[in-house]
Amino acid sequence: MSRRRQIYEGKAKILYEGPEPGTLIQYFKDDATAFNAQKKGTIQGKGVINNRISEYVFTRLNHIGVPNHFIRRLNMREQLVRQVEIIPIEVVVRNVAAGSISKRLGIPEGEMLPHTLIEYYFKDDALGDPLVSEEHIACFGWANHDEMQDIAAMAIRVNDFMAGMFAAINIRLVDFKLEFGRIWDGDYSRVILADEISPDGCRLWDMITGEKLDKDRFRQDLGGEEEAYQEVARRLGLLQDDSG
Amino acid sequence: MSRRRQIYEGKAKILYEGPEPGTLIQYFKDDATAFNAQKKGTIQGKGVINNRISEYVFTRLNHIGVPNHFIRRLNMREQLVRQVEIIPIEVVVRNVAAGSISKRLGIPEGEMLPHTLIEYYFKDDALGDPLVSEEHIACFGWANHDEMQDIAAMAIRVNDFMAGMFAAINIRLVDFKLEFGRIWDGDYSRVILADEISPDGCRLWDMITGEKLDKDRFRQDLGGEEEAYQEVARRLGLLQDDSG
Ligand SMILES: Nc1ncnc2c1ncn2[C@@H]1O[C@H](COP(=O)(O)OP(=O)(O)O)[C@@H](O)[C@H]1O
Ligand SMILES: Nc1ncnc2c1ncn2[C@@H]1O[C@H](COP(=O)(O)OP(=O)(O)O)[C@@H](O)[C@H]1O
Ligand SMILES: [Mg+2]
Ligand SMILES: [Mg+2]
Repeated sequence: MSRRRQIYEGKAKILYEGPEPGTLIQYFKDDATAFNAQKKGTIQGKGVINNRISEYVFTRLNHIGVPNHFIRRLNMREQLVRQVEIIPIEVVVRNVAAGSISKRLGIPEGEMLPHTLIEYYFKDDALGDPLVSEEHIACFGWANHDEMQDIAAMAIRVNDFMAGMFAAINIRLVDFKLEFGRIWDGDYSRVILADEISPDGCRLWDMITGEKLDKDRFRQDLGGEEEAYQEVARRLGLLQDDSG
Repeated sequence: MSRRRQIYEGKAKILYEGPEPGTLIQYFKDDATAFNAQKKGTIQGKGVINNRISEYVFTRLNHIGVPNHFIRRLNMREQLVRQVEIIPIEVVVRNVAAGSISKRLGIPEGEMLPHTLIEYYFKDDALGDPLVSEEHIACFGWANHDEMQDIAAMAIRVNDFMAGMFAAINIRLVDFKLEFGRIWDGDYSRVILADEISPDGCRLWDMITGEKLDKDRFRQDLGGEEEAYQEVARRLGLLQDDSG
């Protein structure tokens, strides 16, 4: 491990140079942060679970033709991905009001939105990831119009796919965050899905009990975050005692 | 005056029932507020000047075919307007970074934006007028897609017209806020420009000295707000000692 060059250490993952040009290794840590890293902690085993869940989702998104960075899982905490030029926009898809939208627009948590909503946040920790509109994104050149079209279309497809996937295991997909990046082929680039999809960046509510099975347990000091992440993995059939 | 029915008292204006159905009287107060009314004060003579400046701008916007609510000025502080169903969106057009965008996105005040930017804020004092995107506006039904198209097109035209108008009197149009409303004709409605256009809702900088000639003098405790508003009116030829 020590021979590999570390490219970046983020709040939840470390990126290492991959074995071939244009590849990276994503290492999933157990570190958890919230409220723009003002709150910090650890969720035991989170990295292992998120690595598995992200593999699971990205593999299946690939099957339905949502292009993404995932190549293969390497071990418990690592996966090989295609290196992209990250677009500095966090794409949030919301089906039900919760978190910041409830606060900003005064919509009670749990209220179903009139229709699915896509929001964009400028990925900048120092600025606190401010909400931006497509106008800002175009104005400051963070992504061009065609890229934003592709991103919105992919985000909607991911939402429909994941809503179905989670519904099948009695989980309500409230909202989630995606990141996208460019891959270059000479002078041309296209946008693919990158980063991760896991309970760190999704709100997942048990359909029967309403219980939160995501990072809100950590954000809101509800306790049982390890068990919640495990429960999602278990229902997806990703825990060993499930596969036998 | 006392016989008229008051419809609404806002932070800067009072609305009275107009002489005919579908009309209102806008009375311009000297009251000034900032930071979502956390700061309150008075700018002596502001109401008189804003009534005149708004008349001036709306009349000329009408000449270039930007439909608006202005009918005629009645006296020093009052104007007759068409009653509209206000769309609860503050439309902000920005040419140069200043105010909230500088803070939110870390762009130094005074930096020219790569291109003109339209922002939308949900007009709700209790929520602090949060920034929203066209997605939010569509999702919550505050305006429909066609209305937003019309609004954006009008906002751009108003910006070009006002940029020219202020350039002619050595003033740089940094940004400004507009409000729009619906007028109904049976089952059909169309959107027209409403509210006011004045130094209360514009950032206006002297092109030579950089001096602020707008409500930022009040917001930032710079002093000389009366003189600044008068200076704008004077350059537009609206003060009496100018007309002789
Ligand atoms: N395929 C990829 N190529 C390059 N960078 C990526 C890729 N996928 C994700 N990233 C970036 O790697 C980082 C992942 O680590 P993370 O801990 O999530 O960081 P952060 O604290 O910045 O969110 C993120 O900054 C993310 O934008
Ligand atoms: N033509 C119109 N018809 C109906 N309402 C209007 C019209 N023009 C402006 N308004 C509304 O009248 C009020 C004007 O008063 P103001 O002091 O600016 O109020 P506020 O504090 O709500 O901004 C605003 O709420 C504005 O939306
Ligand atoms: Mg991250
Ligand atoms: Mg107002």
